[in-house]
Amino acid sequence: MTNNRVFNFSAGPSTLPLSVLEEVRDQLVDYDGSGMSLLEMSHRGAHYDAVHTETMALAREVFALPEDFDVVFIQGGATLQFSMVPANLLAGAASVAVVRTGSWSDKALADATEYGSAYVAWDGKPVRYARAPAADEIEVRDGTRYVHVCSNETIEGLRFPEFPDIGVPLVADMSSDIATRELPWELFDLVYGGTQKNLGPAGMALVFLRHRILTSLRQDQGAYLRYGIHVDKDSLYNTPPVFSVWVTGKVLRWIRDSGGLKAMTAAAERRAGTVYEAIDGSDGFYRCPVEPSSRSLTNVVFRLPHEDLEARFLSEAADRDFVGLKGHRSVGGCRASLYNAMPQDGADALAQFMRDFRSRAR
Amino acid sequence: MTNNRVFNFSAGPSTLPLSVLEEVRDQLVDYDGSGMSLLEMSHRGAHYDAVHTETMALAREVFALPEDFDVVFIQGGATLQFSMVPANLLAGAASVAVVRTGSWSDKALADATEYGSAYVAWDGKPVRYARAPAADEIEVRDGTRYVHVCSNETIEGLRFPEFPDIGVPLVADMSSDIATRELPWELFDLVYGGTQKNLGPAGMALVFLRHRILTSLRQDQGAYLRYGIHVDKDSLYNTPPVFSVWVTGKVLRWIRDSGGLKAMTAAAERRAGTVYEAIDGSDGFYRCPVEPSSRSLTNVVFRLPHEDLEARFLSEAADRDFVGLKGHRSVGGCRASLYNAMPQDGADALAQFMRDFRSRAR
Repeated sequence: MTNNRVFNFSAGPSTLPLSVLEEVRDQLVDYDGSGMSLLEMSHRGAHYDAVHTETMALAREVFALPEDFDVVFIQGGATLQFSMVPANLLAGAASVAVVRTGSWSDKALADATEYGSAYVAWDGKPVRYARAPAADEIEVRDGTRYVHVCSNETIEGLRFPEFPDIGVPLVADMSSDIATRELPWELFDLVYGGTQKNLGPAGMALVFLRHRILTSLRQDQGAYLRYGIHVDKDSLYNTPPVFSVWVTGKVLRWIRDSGGLKAMTAAAERRAGTVYEAIDGSDGFYRCPVEPSSRSLTNVVFRLPHEDLEARFLSEAADRDFVGLKGHRSVGGCRASLYNAMPQDGADALAQFMRDFRSRAR
Repeated sequence: MTNNRVFNFSAGPSTLPLSVLEEVRDQLVDYDGSGMSLLEMSHRGAHYDAVHTETMALAREVFALPEDFDVVFIQGGATLQFSMVPANLLAGAASVAVVRTGSWSDKALADATEYGSAYVAWDGKPVRYARAPAADEIEVRDGTRYVHVCSNETIEGLRFPEFPDIGVPLVADMSSDIATRELPWELFDLVYGGTQKNLGPAGMALVFLRHRILTSLRQDQGAYLRYGIHVDKDSLYNTPPVFSVWVTGKVLRWIRDSGGLKAMTAAAERRAGTVYEAIDGSDGFYRCPVEPSSRSLTNVVFRLPHEDLEARFLSEAADRDFVGLKGHRSVGGCRASLYNAMPQDGADALAQFMRDFRSRAR
């Protein structure tokens, strides 16, 4: 039944641990002998309550979340957070500094301008998003409430190798590298990430926020858009996305039981290293546009000598059941997304295919 | 495997068609021989695109949606719509008239006040939410952009038997009776409902909106909160809630193949009628606080002579695997939620149990 499993390099939604999928399948129709699916149960009942509480607890444990942080589950992915973060944090005349590292920080910037003053504190566009900035390159003005960083740009394939300490609280969109690295929590007021890459199915974001900021958030908006309500109600103000919470809990348990974030980082470095080695050892046949120090561990982008070759590469890769290697439509080229559930075998097989393809193409 | 299925009267999430759950289970790990779960696939790929397109088409077909309406899938359930509707529709000095029929219209009212002027156009509180108003009782002021109605109040157990025609466009929250009744679309500018009662798992709302209102919506907010973006991008601006769209599509197909909304209405009337008969034929042992003409077809609320008897009723019901009969914590008593997937057998068994309990309790 599962022996036809492909290597899925999709940028998100993306590959999940097979054991998690099989567990969900086996529990889907009749949950724990209850005569119901978990999908059918009241979110105020004992079964769902246990699932909800466990997912929360696992999130705290896996992320080593300090006591003074809350974690909430909010629907709408990172995209809704692009609105909620400034709508909640930008009180009065405060402004947000956005570090512009690629497409996703651009989206965060665009939405922030609807809620207050937003400015670019470092602009990666002139260097074609080839690297993340050092801390001392980020120019923060007086009155800045927070500095928004996208920890990993899924489309351009770069990341902050280290989070910058600039004396103003950071807010990080970690959608594409959440749960792949440990975090220096002392630098952050808020961290968010969609679940659909490293943590589960689409349909939810994990939002971590420093408890003490709750007292200074803006309240002049509807209930769902106020962080305080989600915190007060333990993410049960309204019906939560039951399936997402359930499956994300299973993935978090899988992460914990696989060695936690340290093990995820080591696996990510090894997987990405395997593919970057195939790129860097190709005498320029494959090119990664990102400087080595800023290269993403989860989204390896690369180009071939010309677009016809790229098309042939992608076509032959598809024939070998390598799925999702096409680069984002806005930048073209190729991209291998290597999230937590991608086995090292997938990276090995891709690297071997890249070497073979290069030999044949010469 | 499925012979222990209980009768699930939960108010939402709630019972789903068993055939849908079994299909999801069977397709969960390896979708259509692809070597991946649908949960793992790119939302821009062919497999998901087919699912998305089919769910959209089924929604149009089942709801007999006129050509000049759009349908979009938005995360956050009806609760996010409590913010989005006024945030989009209340441009300039326009106000919203809210018909106050119970707890959910109260929530819609509270959120609307954050985005503009909102007033109560008919107040059901003085009559203890025992009925919905007639059209000529709803007092609409000049400058009213829309009249908000909650078509069915899940907690108080009442509904609009007919939607009022008052010469101002209606907006309806249909979370608890969506897909149980046909709609006079000419009265509405917008209709929304969470999926987790009659249409699928939690995690999404269906929003139907009249196309021509798009040009007059407010734009001064983040992308996810603008209806126009969801319409323009066909609900694929960002990663959609794949599982919700998939399962909701299956339920919509089940509705269509079961005879569509006409058949759903007939089944709802018969199910609810069975339980109301047990109430009305009990010589006052069971009491429904709602006037017959406004009684909900999906949420039958009733009281027993005193709270001790209610506790005993609920306890014995639970022993017989009748799940979820406790009334909402804010009002107490009992409630049988009878959504589309509840078989008539469930209503029959409950009515029989109610008669038996009454005989024993006398």
